[in-house]
Amino acid sequence: MAKAGPGAKANAPRGKRATSYDVARLAAVSQSAVSRAFTPDAYISPSMRKKVLAAARQLGYQPNAIARGLTTSRSRVVALFMPNIGNPIYPFVLQTFSHRLRSHGRQILLLPLVENANEALACMLQYQIDGLVITAASPLALSKAIARKCLAAGIPVVLFNRYFADLKVASVNCDNARGGALAAEILHGAGHQRFAFIGGPEETSTHIDRYRGFADRLRAFGAAAPLIETGPYTYDGGHGAGMRLFARRDRPDAIFCANDVLAIGALDAARVGHGLQVPRDVSIIGFDGAPMAAWAGNDLTTIALRLVAMVESTVEVLLRAIDGQRAGSEPIRIPGDLVIRKSARMPGGSLPAAST
Amino acid sequence: MAKAGPGAKANAPRGKRATSYDVARLAAVSQSAVSRAFTPDAYISPSMRKKVLAAARQLGYQPNAIARGLTTSRSRVVALFMPNIGNPIYPFVLQTFSHRLRSHGRQILLLPLVENANEALACMLQYQIDGLVITAASPLALSKAIARKCLAAGIPVVLFNRYFADLKVASVNCDNARGGALAAEILHGAGHQRFAFIGGPEETSTHIDRYRGFADRLRAFGAAAPLIETGPYTYDGGHGAGMRLFARRDRPDAIFCANDVLAIGALDAARVGHGLQVPRDVSIIGFDGAPMAAWAGNDLTTIALRLVAMVESTVEVLLRAIDGQRAGSEPIRIPGDLVIRKSARMPGGSLPAAST
Repeated sequence: MAKAGPGAKANAPRGKRATSYDVARLAAVSQSAVSRAFTPDAYISPSMRKKVLAAARQLGYQPNAIARGLTTSRSRVVALFMPNIGNPIYPFVLQTFSHRLRSHGRQILLLPLVENANEALACMLQYQIDGLVITAASPLALSKAIARKCLAAGIPVVLFNRYFADLKVASVNCDNARGGALAAEILHGAGHQRFAFIGGPEETSTHIDRYRGFADRLRAFGAAAPLIETGPYTYDGGHGAGMRLFARRDRPDAIFCANDVLAIGALDAARVGHGLQVPRDVSIIGFDGAPMAAWAGNDLTTIALRLVAMVESTVEVLLRAIDGQRAGSEPIRIPGDLVIRKSARMPGGSLPAAST
Repeated sequence: MAKAGPGAKANAPRGKRATSYDVARLAAVSQSAVSRAFTPDAYISPSMRKKVLAAARQLGYQPNAIARGLTTSRSRVVALFMPNIGNPIYPFVLQTFSHRLRSHGRQILLLPLVENANEALACMLQYQIDGLVITAASPLALSKAIARKCLAAGIPVVLFNRYFADLKVASVNCDNARGGALAAEILHGAGHQRFAFIGGPEETSTHIDRYRGFADRLRAFGAAAPLIETGPYTYDGGHGAGMRLFARRDRPDAIFCANDVLAIGALDAARVGHGLQVPRDVSIIGFDGAPMAAWAGNDLTTIALRLVAMVESTVEVLLRAIDGQRAGSEPIRIPGDLVIRKSARMPGGSLPAAST
């Protein structure tokens, strides 16, 4: 890990870290006042505390927890990049990162949606951020540019629920291809014949791998290739795709959607938009395990991410990298779990009671 | 604002802020290397950059943007407290805070769910956070304790979508009582007679004011007092409350819910759980303007918060307080907007086409 020049710490008077006495002298207060200013329960007036904090900042003095970080040049702050949190799994992802990082004494700085990668790197450097998690809830090209800049600057980066085919960055993902294959097995096994896939932006790794797993397995079964519709990873994207698919003369009787909000949009296009019964007329399977997949009005069969395990793995990889261990760039893949509800017929089973 | 002791800055050698030359000496590199280490586009090896960052941290040296903050003892970081983001308006709230604060050159540190207020204050002090926004997406008692600690420490606090009846803290809210009254006007005007209110935790200001506005207006109309059911502010809370209400012999024909996820739970309890038609058998109105209120399967009439205006107002109040202006503690109230969809009959109007 980073080390200052040999012997530098002990000798150079300029290099000596400011003490509470230095702060007291500069602020023209007692050392005890400095100590109280940094103690949550201690009595000190707001104006006195402000005076102490101003002097402390001027001297680069930092107490306690931060001081521990100082000796290893770490701020103990990790940045998280997730500017597009339209996908409803991300609030839970954020909470889980917050809990896990806190248990390791880390805080989260939220990296805002920036103009370009330079702006992001400047922020990372100015706040001396220890490491960065880039989630799939972020623009792809910008994320890649930011990852490249940070790695070149020696700042560890881990991708969450995304990987780059053409840039070596550590990443933690769901086993998306396996999830897609599972959806194909269920829908084909249930006796469906006209398959469709509703996907997200075509360049994202979630879209690519979920489609590939689904289409490859269908091909292995000798089934016809699925129809494809794509859109943004939103309810409206899924609703629009569903409306187009159900208006076709050869409308599909089985749809696999690349995430749950797409699937809920497709469900509503079927039921409300086209008066179809689910799953009598069409089976629909989603991906993610979003909370609203469980709502009685949706009752969506889905492949749920193991979000807690994915977050824990991401934090582990990141902290190891911050500790100076080299992170492998081969994507880590954690399987998803099939959650059976009533939006899809099951192989060999009877028709589940219609939920509408 | 905070000032160090008179004359302190210019004189004391110990108090002198470290320069890039000091950092270069300690790290045993050239000054140009120090400069390059803090410049996003500059060429520098990762190991060299690490060496420079370690020395910079040891000396408390900070370049550029942070240096500007130093002269006023500000980190230009604002903390946001929203550990319970089950309410689906909060992802948008978080995004909007992030955009607005970035436009003012501020970053967001996400305050995690802590054990107690001391831990929160310690974090605020250690990272020298400029100010704190506490959102309604947080435990009430803990939030109040944190607000009290921060204010005593001279750290500005603004509440978002919440106020404390018994503690003077600046806050920005929806005009909840007016929203509740509006719901009463619509449901009473549409000819309903058996009213119910599904609320959240009874001690929250959103629950109290939305109920009060609703019940007071009904009383003014001479209507019977509404039935009340409460639960957590979640889909399951609303679903459970709805199931109980619809099982009553005197089941309500009009329900006002204190937020949209409660209302969607109640909608599903009516349609899926009890086979009722909405709004033929029962009208349901929500509150918030959550994205899924607009989904075709829900089609929920609601009173939408002006979230962008509320966030902008919160940021404005907070930045003024950081600038040393005293913030008033009288709650700022921004009206909500009625969004008419198909889950409730309207006064004088014909029955909207049933959405199920």
